[in-house]
Amino acid sequence: MHILIIGAAGMVGRKLTEKLVKDGALGGKAITEFSLVDVVAPEKPAGFAGKVTSWAVDISFPNTAGPMIAGRPDVIFHLAAIVSGEAEVDFDKGYRINLDGTRQIYEAIRQEGVKAPYHPRVVFTSSIAVYGAPFHEFIEDEFFHTPLTSYGTQKSIGELLLTDYSRKGFFDGVGIRLPTICVRPGKPNKAASGFFSNIIREPLVGMEAVLPVGDDVVHTHASPRSAVGFLIHAATMDTAQLGWRRNLSMPGVVATVGEQLEALRKIGGEKALKLVRREPDELIIRIVSGWSQRFNAKRAAELGFRAETSFEEIVRAHVEDELGGKVA
Amino acid sequence: MHILIIGAAGMVGRKLTEKLVKDGALGGKAITEFSLVDVVAPEKPAGFAGKVTSWAVDISFPNTAGPMIAGRPDVIFHLAAIVSGEAEVDFDKGYRINLDGTRQIYEAIRQEGVKAPYHPRVVFTSSIAVYGAPFHEFIEDEFFHTPLTSYGTQKSIGELLLTDYSRKGFFDGVGIRLPTICVRPGKPNKAASGFFSNIIREPLVGMEAVLPVGDDVVHTHASPRSAVGFLIHAATMDTAQLGWRRNLSMPGVVATVGEQLEALRKIGGEKALKLVRREPDELIIRIVSGWSQRFNAKRAAELGFRAETSFEEIVRAHVEDELGGKVA
Repeated sequence: MHILIIGAAGMVGRKLTEKLVKDGALGGKAITEFSLVDVVAPEKPAGFAGKVTSWAVDISFPNTAGPMIAGRPDVIFHLAAIVSGEAEVDFDKGYRINLDGTRQIYEAIRQEGVKAPYHPRVVFTSSIAVYGAPFHEFIEDEFFHTPLTSYGTQKSIGELLLTDYSRKGFFDGVGIRLPTICVRPGKPNKAASGFFSNIIREPLVGMEAVLPVGDDVVHTHASPRSAVGFLIHAATMDTAQLGWRRNLSMPGVVATVGEQLEALRKIGGEKALKLVRREPDELIIRIVSGWSQRFNAKRAAELGFRAETSFEEIVRAHVEDELGGKVA
Repeated sequence: MHILIIGAAGMVGRKLTEKLVKDGALGGKAITEFSLVDVVAPEKPAGFAGKVTSWAVDISFPNTAGPMIAGRPDVIFHLAAIVSGEAEVDFDKGYRINLDGTRQIYEAIRQEGVKAPYHPRVVFTSSIAVYGAPFHEFIEDEFFHTPLTSYGTQKSIGELLLTDYSRKGFFDGVGIRLPTICVRPGKPNKAASGFFSNIIREPLVGMEAVLPVGDDVVHTHASPRSAVGFLIHAATMDTAQLGWRRNLSMPGVVATVGEQLEALRKIGGEKALKLVRREPDELIIRIVSGWSQRFNAKRAAELGFRAETSFEEIVRAHVEDELGGKVA
């Protein structure tokens, strides 16, 4: 089995590669080859004996998708994207990568199929940014897409194209809308959503974190481990169950910030909790108030996608995967 | 006021041009100029004293949108599209015109605004083809888009882009999803939906029409007169009421084929009804069974969009507008 990961150098892409190398197989078939693509060349994974090709390309450039697809990978994970903030500031770049880049990948697959029959599984990471306020209390599976960012618009278009290319028989696509990934490993960043991870990650290693919003803010989270699990399930599930509704909101843990902090206290103790400094930030409060809060991802759950069931479980996954099971 | 109509040679485009010429004004402002665009050059409207430019262009060709927009029209009606059946058969052509063509028009407006501030009203005709079965009994305003045709996919993408370009301040867009337009004037055509018009139009002029489906088939209709009314309302309404939910399903008359025939009998008499020949066609029965049946276009109605309230009214509009008020 040959696996292509586009966006392999990002956090989720690296974790997905690691997991696949560790498993050695996908859907019961041995993995013999990886093609790893990103705007910087992804590192070759340690401990993999098969063939690895690493590419540094801009997927929006003409004729970059064709060569990636020419190797006829069996499964294609398309994770590459300009993130929300950047796509909002740089309108052209967002559309160039997130819309044109995605379309060129899909189109290269279709053209490869013109040469000889070819019908790979394509897993596309969409986002809950396809939804825009005002929301219902829970966002149900049939709620409409009214994105309030260019990023959300581009992801929504990627979903529509994925379905149409699947329906026309050009490939076998599954789109998954990830909730906020928490706890993100690494350093604190300036993303407006960064605090959801910062307030857990930093105190667990004895460092201070800033909480810019109130304890009553509600959000839906899934761990990086769950995100990788979603991708693998999407790559191996029976797509006949999906019909032509190929895009799914992923399950997650609905938690208030207060509940997040309570999970932190349980696992890191009072000393961890004390490292969270409350410093309300009106800008972040306003941004976060426009975000979706609660999802009811009934369909994905019925189709076998699994997330954690409590925020405490999310914190434990972080401690196991990033801290070798130890808390400072 | 300068008005650009892209797709001006089509049935709705011609009726819109006629109505605007007759009114002489739009939203209380005198119309001084028309730019009329289609793949064949639209006819210059009779009885208009102002400037008229007529263009025959393929909107998907590079550098065709720029020159149209360079005249800085105040209102742009974008009605041009490859229709459903053709977009399904010719995948490339559908995407080229319905997606790339639409995007190039939007982008030309944005680029015109870079030269000097420019913020025209853009009215885009979308379609109920953005929806795909299975449906609820009524399709409500917040039901999600799961198109089952490439045409529906392209229209849904056009809606998303319209909203994003509006949100970013590049223009002031309104997208309207037209129900099936009935009674379409002209000759019977081979569109699967053609019979909805044929069974009214032909008997009213003493000709036979074929009914390929059962009397219990339910559908939502609006007259060509209402379609023109929707476009004009979309061009003149206060868009502040829309927020960033810029696309609306238009109201229509929900009617069974049996109710259509009863309206025909009331207006054309028994002799008209007798000209409808029942000839079940399994292919058409199957296609129609996958179509949306009933809309509840609550939001559009609240925003002042008006359709007929009975199918009889739709037939009367046809008799007045196409038959000079006379029935054979």
